[in-house]
Amino acid sequence: MPRPPLRFSAFVMNTASHIVHGLWRDPEGEQLRFNELDLWVDLAKRLEAGGFDAIFFADVVGVYGDYRGGWAHHAELGLQIPSNDPLVILSALASHTQHLGLAFTAGPIQQPPYNFARQVATLDHASNGRIAWNIVTSALANGWKNFGHDDLLSHDDRYAFADEYLDVLYKLWEGSWDEDALEQDRGSGRHADPSKIHAINHVSEHWKVQGPFLSAPSPQRTPLLFQAGSSKVGRDFAARHAEAQFIVSPGAEQARVLIDDTRRLVEAHGRHRDDLKFFQGLSFVVGSTEEEALRKEAELEEKIDIDGQIAHFGGSLGVDLGAYEPDTPIDVIHTEGGQSGLAWLREATNGRTPTLEDVVRLRTRNTRVTGTPEQIADELARWSEAGVDGINVVNATIPGSYQEFIDHVLPVLRERGLAQREYTPGTLRRKLFGNDRLSERHPAARYRGAFRSQVPVG
Amino acid sequence: MPRPPLRFSAFVMNTASHIVHGLWRDPEGEQLRFNELDLWVDLAKRLEAGGFDAIFFADVVGVYGDYRGGWAHHAELGLQIPSNDPLVILSALASHTQHLGLAFTAGPIQQPPYNFARQVATLDHASNGRIAWNIVTSALANGWKNFGHDDLLSHDDRYAFADEYLDVLYKLWEGSWDEDALEQDRGSGRHADPSKIHAINHVSEHWKVQGPFLSAPSPQRTPLLFQAGSSKVGRDFAARHAEAQFIVSPGAEQARVLIDDTRRLVEAHGRHRDDLKFFQGLSFVVGSTEEEALRKEAELEEKIDIDGQIAHFGGSLGVDLGAYEPDTPIDVIHTEGGQSGLAWLREATNGRTPTLEDVVRLRTRNTRVTGTPEQIADELARWSEAGVDGINVVNATIPGSYQEFIDHVLPVLRERGLAQREYTPGTLRRKLFGNDRLSERHPAARYRGAFRSQVPVG
Repeated sequence: MPRPPLRFSAFVMNTASHIVHGLWRDPEGEQLRFNELDLWVDLAKRLEAGGFDAIFFADVVGVYGDYRGGWAHHAELGLQIPSNDPLVILSALASHTQHLGLAFTAGPIQQPPYNFARQVATLDHASNGRIAWNIVTSALANGWKNFGHDDLLSHDDRYAFADEYLDVLYKLWEGSWDEDALEQDRGSGRHADPSKIHAINHVSEHWKVQGPFLSAPSPQRTPLLFQAGSSKVGRDFAARHAEAQFIVSPGAEQARVLIDDTRRLVEAHGRHRDDLKFFQGLSFVVGSTEEEALRKEAELEEKIDIDGQIAHFGGSLGVDLGAYEPDTPIDVIHTEGGQSGLAWLREATNGRTPTLEDVVRLRTRNTRVTGTPEQIADELARWSEAGVDGINVVNATIPGSYQEFIDHVLPVLRERGLAQREYTPGTLRRKLFGNDRLSERHPAARYRGAFRSQVPVG
Repeated sequence: MPRPPLRFSAFVMNTASHIVHGLWRDPEGEQLRFNELDLWVDLAKRLEAGGFDAIFFADVVGVYGDYRGGWAHHAELGLQIPSNDPLVILSALASHTQHLGLAFTAGPIQQPPYNFARQVATLDHASNGRIAWNIVTSALANGWKNFGHDDLLSHDDRYAFADEYLDVLYKLWEGSWDEDALEQDRGSGRHADPSKIHAINHVSEHWKVQGPFLSAPSPQRTPLLFQAGSSKVGRDFAARHAEAQFIVSPGAEQARVLIDDTRRLVEAHGRHRDDLKFFQGLSFVVGSTEEEALRKEAELEEKIDIDGQIAHFGGSLGVDLGAYEPDTPIDVIHTEGGQSGLAWLREATNGRTPTLEDVVRLRTRNTRVTGTPEQIADELARWSEAGVDGINVVNATIPGSYQEFIDHVLPVLRERGLAQREYTPGTLRRKLFGNDRLSERHPAARYRGAFRSQVPVG
């Protein structure tokens, strides 16, 4: 069976320097204007005009781990500080688009579930069902310290905390209101049928929520659920909860192995293997000839701030790499987690012991596709064949990287059936899965109708 | 000295039935469409075209207190359930307007201060400094039970909780970033000066927040602060923190007494008497003749759902009035707080013991101005002379009530100098006070520069 067209989302963050550091200095980049709403409204309109499926906002709620003893260097580079909240700008994007999915990132430390559930339901109403939530567990220690904690919880405890949080949200989104509770009948004067609205009386370790939920069911109820966990626990969490997983495999074949394995996990949790879609993160350098593309890639490599890439890499690992020069062989660097994940690096450097600079350059280069639109199409066909459902497009500049992809690559992809020709009408979930609501196999579905036995009130 | 023009804000809520219940049934009202973003975008555009200063969203985070033993009746009437979050739709309104102030209501139980501060700063950036926050302490028991508490805190404890919350917010908004920390210098490659960004290391009873704040200073930093407390403790809170107070006086002379008294409190806290502006809540029935206006008012009285008004009144007091018929004399009703606040009612009913229906009808009638545009202008001149700075315009229908006021009343007010002829450029605070940032007399100002001695990091 031929693979369906790939999905495309734009991977951005409400900040000046998200992943490819130093590029905010580029005269063609406008990401320095991230504080301005117009930058994002303009980008959303471009993405929709170009046929993108979604805009996907990453986020953090703290500074990255130390580099040279603190976060001063991060601030100098603009490395995700300053940054703004992604969720609160989505209604503006919704009001200027009709089809574009609106995905944001947030974690359970940020808001009590009742408020979060209501903000998301409000946005799902406002966008006619185009909201997606990328569930994160917040891995930066400073983030936890901004939210009353002494330190980061352990990795597994963070997932348990997220599980508990989701449980409350599912009750509010799926269980508190029956489907036809809202009547809005001008004639009878009955606005809603109270026998179809329920308290949830949730009590668990961290949360106690009486309900009822205040928002009536939005087009999707639960927003489309994204997740990006790559650990064993993280992938198991995704296999249970997520409808789309954001992956960053170093190649299509590695993606195939990962995806097959995760799909088995999805099935083990009683869901169908296609209940979870996979979005691979990739960036693109496009040329009208291969030579031009390679020249542009070399220029890009020149512009990348290696210091920033190292600070970001170490800051996510929680390892201060600031004491090492970029040409330090990585054998010299001792990290808590060991170097088991870096075996592919030796291969990539032809057996030579890679340096710190090699590591960070390869991290971006592995997920970069450089070439003519036709060559890029060939490469994307390989990713699609490997089981990838969509591409999360990483940018060097905003809006430049996206406009280039829209103008030069997407037309070729559409001709080859690798990208959609027009939007499917309806909610984001309908566009991806053919229905507005979570499948009955999803764990949230168990709360549908579950609170009807609550004692009727008044 | 002649009084400056009055300010006008539209008092709305993201729900079908906010204050004047039963009117959602009116064929001319569109508030049933509250789930749709377009209703609010359209209203915001109308308000700005008409010269309104702000749209002001009320909110609750729980159902009102019981009526006939529960909240079922509230749901039947649509009495503020369902309702949506007001904050997350503001960016959409910002993107379709240039001058309109965007005021929302929220309380400290809803979000940890770090996330709230960042959402608000993001919106203040997105709107070029037009955000106002109406600080509430959340007086509904169900609201607290939706946020992990066993019950409502006591009235005074709620204010102490809000004080503590504001303290953290002020540190994040005013103290974490120095004015010129952001450089965004493409040439030098320095995005910000880290020596001008500070951790706050806040520790208090309920909150522990390390910082730094992640958002760079927004045009207003702290949003314009609204408050609506009417108790002694509430007015003292407003006198310390608020820049605008929403009052609901039964008449201009009562407003004069209240305002003079509160201004004295403001001064007692080391602020200037004009550092706090007063917005009176009023609704309007407009006719081309007095007769027409009176006829329209009679029609409106017919449409008001008295049951809803009683449920709302009792639900805010925390007293179940569902056992009483509307014609019950209020002497028969025993409420915890006693009837000391109802003395004016006897006067209003010519000495006759008022009934429950009298009470709720008079509550809306006392703050309703009915007449020709000229008569309304005369009445508003009296409110202005009493010291009121602005009017929070209550609606019967959306957008009808506002369009009528814009088309028929505002032109007359402008001729008389009672309403502005054009917008002052700049932020909401600049429009109201002539400067973008909180005055140096405000308690938040003490945190400016207060964290410079934090140990520099990295």
